[in-house]
Amino acid sequence: MSTILVTGARGFIGRTLAVQLSRSDNAVVGIGHGSISQPRYHSFGLTEWINGEIDHANLQLIQRRCGQIDSIFHLAGGSHVGRSFENPAEDFLRTVVAAGQLLEWVRLTCPHVPIVIVSSAAVYGAGHIGPIAEDARLNPFSPYGTHKAMLESLAKSYCDNFGLRIAICRLFSVYGEGLEKQLIYDLCCKAETVQKNNLDTLALGGTGNELRDWIHVQDVAELLQQIHPACSEACPIFNGGSGTGVSVSDVASVFTKSWGGELKASFNQQQRSGDPKSLVASTHRLKEIGFAPKIDLASGIGRVIESFRSKNAESC
Amino acid sequence: MSTILVTGARGFIGRTLAVQLSRSDNAVVGIGHGSISQPRYHSFGLTEWINGEIDHANLQLIQRRCGQIDSIFHLAGGSHVGRSFENPAEDFLRTVVAAGQLLEWVRLTCPHVPIVIVSSAAVYGAGHIGPIAEDARLNPFSPYGTHKAMLESLAKSYCDNFGLRIAICRLFSVYGEGLEKQLIYDLCCKAETVQKNNLDTLALGGTGNELRDWIHVQDVAELLQQIHPACSEACPIFNGGSGTGVSVSDVASVFTKSWGGELKASFNQQQRSGDPKSLVASTHRLKEIGFAPKIDLASGIGRVIESFRSKNAESC
Repeated sequence: MSTILVTGARGFIGRTLAVQLSRSDNAVVGIGHGSISQPRYHSFGLTEWINGEIDHANLQLIQRRCGQIDSIFHLAGGSHVGRSFENPAEDFLRTVVAAGQLLEWVRLTCPHVPIVIVSSAAVYGAGHIGPIAEDARLNPFSPYGTHKAMLESLAKSYCDNFGLRIAICRLFSVYGEGLEKQLIYDLCCKAETVQKNNLDTLALGGTGNELRDWIHVQDVAELLQQIHPACSEACPIFNGGSGTGVSVSDVASVFTKSWGGELKASFNQQQRSGDPKSLVASTHRLKEIGFAPKIDLASGIGRVIESFRSKNAESC
Repeated sequence: MSTILVTGARGFIGRTLAVQLSRSDNAVVGIGHGSISQPRYHSFGLTEWINGEIDHANLQLIQRRCGQIDSIFHLAGGSHVGRSFENPAEDFLRTVVAAGQLLEWVRLTCPHVPIVIVSSAAVYGAGHIGPIAEDARLNPFSPYGTHKAMLESLAKSYCDNFGLRIAICRLFSVYGEGLEKQLIYDLCCKAETVQKNNLDTLALGGTGNELRDWIHVQDVAELLQQIHPACSEACPIFNGGSGTGVSVSDVASVFTKSWGGELKASFNQQQRSGDPKSLVASTHRLKEIGFAPKIDLASGIGRVIESFRSKNAESC
């Protein structure tokens, strides 16, 4: 049995990953912000949950409680482009400083332990056309993107200079059941409200032409596990996307068909800050490791709608 | 009269800069690590000295004591490539985390204040041949270099996203009277010891062929002031060097001539980690702002030797 540490295990991707990891013969330990009852964290597949900062003291505590860690998935960090403009220092702390603590602890206590680090396609920023390869120029367009790029630099330094074994995954537009933010959830909330009021138009920000690469959270959780054996001193980087760019207006079309009724989307035509026009993954390296997503966008959106309707939608 | 904050004002370059700034009609305030008596910090040209971390509380304290800050020179940070291998977390704190605190404080309290940030040619790392332009690929070769590159990314993010006005200076091999480390000081110590023992060989690490770009600390202090008007949202970057590459063995030759007696240097032929073969500045941008160093290497080495001899050399 392996003991696996998942940082940010209470987050959207962290929960999904923890559940998947716990189905194999693993003890999965989580750390991150937020109080969770034991039955609830057990339902995420976690044997232990530490509510707190990722720092030396808490990491030591985990090791004392759970014994030697065999693998780490580092998912903790800033998770909102918008909030990184409102409070860049908080995003910096969560993404850069926390990673510094984790990497240093690994260097000092268990330098052989492989670490899969989750970064973001936001490191690519604006100005890219077509699928973006992992060696493309980085031009982050937000504090969030800058901090993820800094996290990657720090990880590479710990590989180059101290022999840590790391692989980085730059996630594109992750969606799925349980994510209570971003486009597809917003569409659910808006559709619910619009239909309650006997209206038919979903009013959305942006131009609708923004191209994004959508990947379902279940596929992401599998991808992170598939990347795990690639952890090495070379610090390889993998895009986490499907390779297909779909415009926001096309997502809205798929959504409205799946939702039912006579809905249409309108866009305010204003580009948002921190919002590049095109972010689509080159999947060359993913093909090399034999990864392909299993859940296509239409099925994924269908699952999100079903899950949304099965819950109380009053929270919108 | 302007009020100028110099972080790291107790350091080798910070002291020299503070003295120069105080000669014009400026109140110069310093912050950094180390207890200094009032007469001593007055001798550095400082009106105030805060012994402590660069954090929000200390920066607020400075503002309460000294009023509105008009300009900032940010020199605090890790200053030893070697120590960054021994204790990367400390170097990270000093270079990356401290800069995060400073930039956030400026954003929140005085976003119009120009900041000159001192970085290092270590961001370029290995693999460069000939003069390195500021837009060259960064490939840091040590935690020290990585952390300086992260500092630069963070500064650029605060310019791009929050309109801060910054200019960055990547310093090459700075030397001068009072620097009690690195090649030229080591040569002084070794020459002293060798002659005391009636020997003639200065034993040095490396191959002797390492090319470095030497710039005297007085020239650096002038350069930082000359860069100051360039602070802008575009976050321009300037090399801080002379544009001339001189090998370590040639430095040793200039030194032994200047020192006197029958000395020669020998090299152990081992390349040190974190030690690129060639680090020489392209001075294209420096010429654009009309900067040229005034102190040539032979005169500079002469000054270091004179200063070394006038002090008690027992500390070697």
